[in-house]
Amino acid sequence: MFEILLKNITRRIQLTSEETALFTSLLSVKKLKRRQFLVQEGEFNKYSAFVTSGCLRSYTVDKNGFEHVLQFAPQDWWITDMASFLHNLPGTLFIDAIFESEVVLIQRSGIEKLYQTIPQFERYFRILAENALVTYQRRLMDNLSLTARERYDHFCTRYPSLIETLPQKQVAAYIGVTPEFLSKMLNTGTGRKGQTETS
Amino acid sequence: MFEILLKNITRRIQLTSEETALFTSLLSVKKLKRRQFLVQEGEFNKYSAFVTSGCLRSYTVDKNGFEHVLQFAPQDWWITDMASFLHNLPGTLFIDAIFESEVVLIQRSGIEKLYQTIPQFERYFRILAENALVTYQRRLMDNLSLTARERYDHFCTRYPSLIETLPQKQVAAYIGVTPEFLSKMLNTGTGRKGQTETS
Repeated sequence: MFEILLKNITRRIQLTSEETALFTSLLSVKKLKRRQFLVQEGEFNKYSAFVTSGCLRSYTVDKNGFEHVLQFAPQDWWITDMASFLHNLPGTLFIDAIFESEVVLIQRSGIEKLYQTIPQFERYFRILAENALVTYQRRLMDNLSLTARERYDHFCTRYPSLIETLPQKQVAAYIGVTPEFLSKMLNTGTGRKGQTETS
Repeated sequence: MFEILLKNITRRIQLTSEETALFTSLLSVKKLKRRQFLVQEGEFNKYSAFVTSGCLRSYTVDKNGFEHVLQFAPQDWWITDMASFLHNLPGTLFIDAIFESEVVLIQRSGIEKLYQTIPQFERYFRILAENALVTYQRRLMDNLSLTARERYDHFCTRYPSLIETLPQKQVAAYIGVTPEFLSKMLNTGTGRKGQTETS
């Protein structure tokens, strides 16, 4: 049931069978239908979710109604509204399932218990946070300095499996252009920054 | 000599005097003149730097010569090219001193030694990475969904002391507009996205 998650963890740290038992006792499983929300903006994000099948995304909706995707989480990825989860604040993100999905959930209190009883989890989540940090830093620099076309190409290179499965509209909301602009760009080879990007 | 750094650390973890001695034995101090580089694009970023005075910044230069600031690091902040530092890759960032500065340096091998001998440092750097992650996620969403004026206002709210000390040009390179655009925006109250942002 927790096989994919345990495999993910043992790539970074080694657990005894007692530790594995304690860890899995803190988990729960949730199935999500397509478009079903894990959490909505304004709600407290009490769980961190590890995707075992399907794909989730976190996003905001701006005042003009445009969606902006912060993260896609296919199988083997964690997703949460970090600011809300860590600091017990109302969330600023929507998190929903792009396809029918299954996630493993752990509460903040569960993670705190892990840190106290199995300190190796400090290492596991440190490595995850550092890797995520590198990803966001890179993406931020891309958004500031690259054209839409270049951002799209980077996305294709970095996430070849996502580009095959995601609706184009979702990719547009990730790279920061309208779906119409992305479609036109792919058909005509345009994509210079400042043309008709979102908002 | 390492007082500010030790204070920063003891806000998150407690060290014995032996641990403090081991930790400080892994540190070195470097003074930087204004504009002096800590590291340049293409070089391997072997150190993580903690700023004890002055202010550093990390940035890229795009093909049109525009600078894009990833991070400002005033006193009490860490700065490094994370991707290069963690994965031993050639760096993609320039890091230099905006003002005359002093930093405490630790090598990657020093941090690895800390993880092995004082596992609490896993916790310290996990907390730092998670907090940084929240900051970058928030900034990325701001860049995708807010106008330049709103991004400027957020910067002022989040970093009131930086806004007083940094040259306007640096703030422009952080929020993603040209210095001319920022200056005009502040004088005339413009700043709607898509006007004359950089690149």
